[in-house]
Amino acid sequence: MATISLRSNVRHPVRRLRAGVWSREDDVLAAEEPLEIRLLWEEDGKVVRKAIAITMRTPGEDFELATGFLYGEGIIAGREDVVDVSYCTDEDEDQQLNIVNVTLRPGLRFDVARLDRNFYTTSSCGVCGKAALDALEVQGCAVLPAGLAVSAKTICALPEKLRGAQAVFERTGGLHASGLFTPDGELVSLREDVGRHNAFDKLAGEQVLAGRTPLDGHIVMLSGRASFELLQKALVARIPIVAAVGAPSSLAVQLAEEFNLTLCGFVKADGLNVYTAPERVQA
Amino acid sequence: MATISLRSNVRHPVRRLRAGVWSREDDVLAAEEPLEIRLLWEEDGKVVRKAIAITMRTPGEDFELATGFLYGEGIIAGREDVVDVSYCTDEDEDQQLNIVNVTLRPGLRFDVARLDRNFYTTSSCGVCGKAALDALEVQGCAVLPAGLAVSAKTICALPEKLRGAQAVFERTGGLHASGLFTPDGELVSLREDVGRHNAFDKLAGEQVLAGRTPLDGHIVMLSGRASFELLQKALVARIPIVAAVGAPSSLAVQLAEEFNLTLCGFVKADGLNVYTAPERVQA
Repeated sequence: MATISLRSNVRHPVRRLRAGVWSREDDVLAAEEPLEIRLLWEEDGKVVRKAIAITMRTPGEDFELATGFLYGEGIIAGREDVVDVSYCTDEDEDQQLNIVNVTLRPGLRFDVARLDRNFYTTSSCGVCGKAALDALEVQGCAVLPAGLAVSAKTICALPEKLRGAQAVFERTGGLHASGLFTPDGELVSLREDVGRHNAFDKLAGEQVLAGRTPLDGHIVMLSGRASFELLQKALVARIPIVAAVGAPSSLAVQLAEEFNLTLCGFVKADGLNVYTAPERVQA
Repeated sequence: MATISLRSNVRHPVRRLRAGVWSREDDVLAAEEPLEIRLLWEEDGKVVRKAIAITMRTPGEDFELATGFLYGEGIIAGREDVVDVSYCTDEDEDQQLNIVNVTLRPGLRFDVARLDRNFYTTSSCGVCGKAALDALEVQGCAVLPAGLAVSAKTICALPEKLRGAQAVFERTGGLHASGLFTPDGELVSLREDVGRHNAFDKLAGEQVLAGRTPLDGHIVMLSGRASFELLQKALVARIPIVAAVGAPSSLAVQLAEEFNLTLCGFVKADGLNVYTAPERVQA
């Protein structure tokens, strides 16, 4: 029996700065875990199984998520095409609630070849948060060393600097940004994109092509929320401090904690929350 | 020679409502186009090519994007692993600036099998915006019929209703939401997730499982920006009006225009922008 419950939020201790005053509180994080969607259908009297997508999602309403995904992709046209939706119980206990099997109506015609080619999955290797974190270690990511220290005041000034430097956003209101800063808060580089992960990839890619990686000794400022995927990219680039205008997800905080990465959320002119490795943030 | 230029923004006429007054203006949209990343490497004296990811991105800094993506995924460890980055010039003119070839250092070792399994691509079939739109027609998506009409006042009231009904966001500040509404502005259902496309999939999936699709005669309200992917999902579900708190991308507007879907952006209590099919919005 699965003993994990589906939680859409997770509590985590946080150091909060508001108007010059620090406090310690418990913060509630939006949960983030991978979900694998598997299709089952009959072909020549045999049941075919195929994993077609992995997505990072907030646990809950997973049958709806899997069904809605297949509907949006045109694999199913409505309720009548779905025989059954259930969690996969063949796997490790950890993963049971992160895999959904969708059994299709016998005789339903769809383009199997398209499944191989055109679906997104995340770069995460596992189908539970722990597996995703383990995969980073396998990939060779080590714990970030102590050392860099930055004043809270410097970090709080970054959102305004980021916004001030955003060229396209100014006109469209529609772009995410990632900005690379020195510990003194000087802008090194900024990239924008409709996709938040793309903005980060552009920034890191620029630094790679210039031969300037790894990026230890830098801060990255994100215009939106801090997801697992963004933290993973920062870790690979060895950036010890990630600051975000928005909220971090639960798995982003777990990653930051495990690899000693300083994660600040809700950063604005008069305050911020420090979720992990607070020793790099000077009062 | 490629004649397309890389544009990070696109102009589009919009009907703007602010404090009760309508105006017609040109709005600047963040451009969104698919990018395919292809790897080239030598194996047994032959050059191997492999498309490993398609992502929806804002054109520009594409070499950086491809390089940063490979860096984040641990395929390359730094500048020395990259021999060349260039646009693919073998393809149709339309696609030339949407495919980036990255040639890896001879002898670089990486896990080829992982490429098959663990990378995200979008559900978009094409590697240019037009191909992505064409794919929707192939999938059987027809132009949405005229008919439904909703007052601007009703639409402007939706963000507050959406926010009021968001349970998890209240505590975490970290979730996207999709809400389904009747033409009178009554909430039918709401779903939340760290991923904006997941929130929509959950909402649509719920309706599919309940046998209530297609969703013509409904409005969907999005908590964030309106991307191509979200508009695609709305179109498949036959929802004629999409309202978003944030900005739409260029390709989202193109899709909405082509399929006669009413797209409203920057929706708030005292105003909104109507980008396409304005006849469904009553002054």
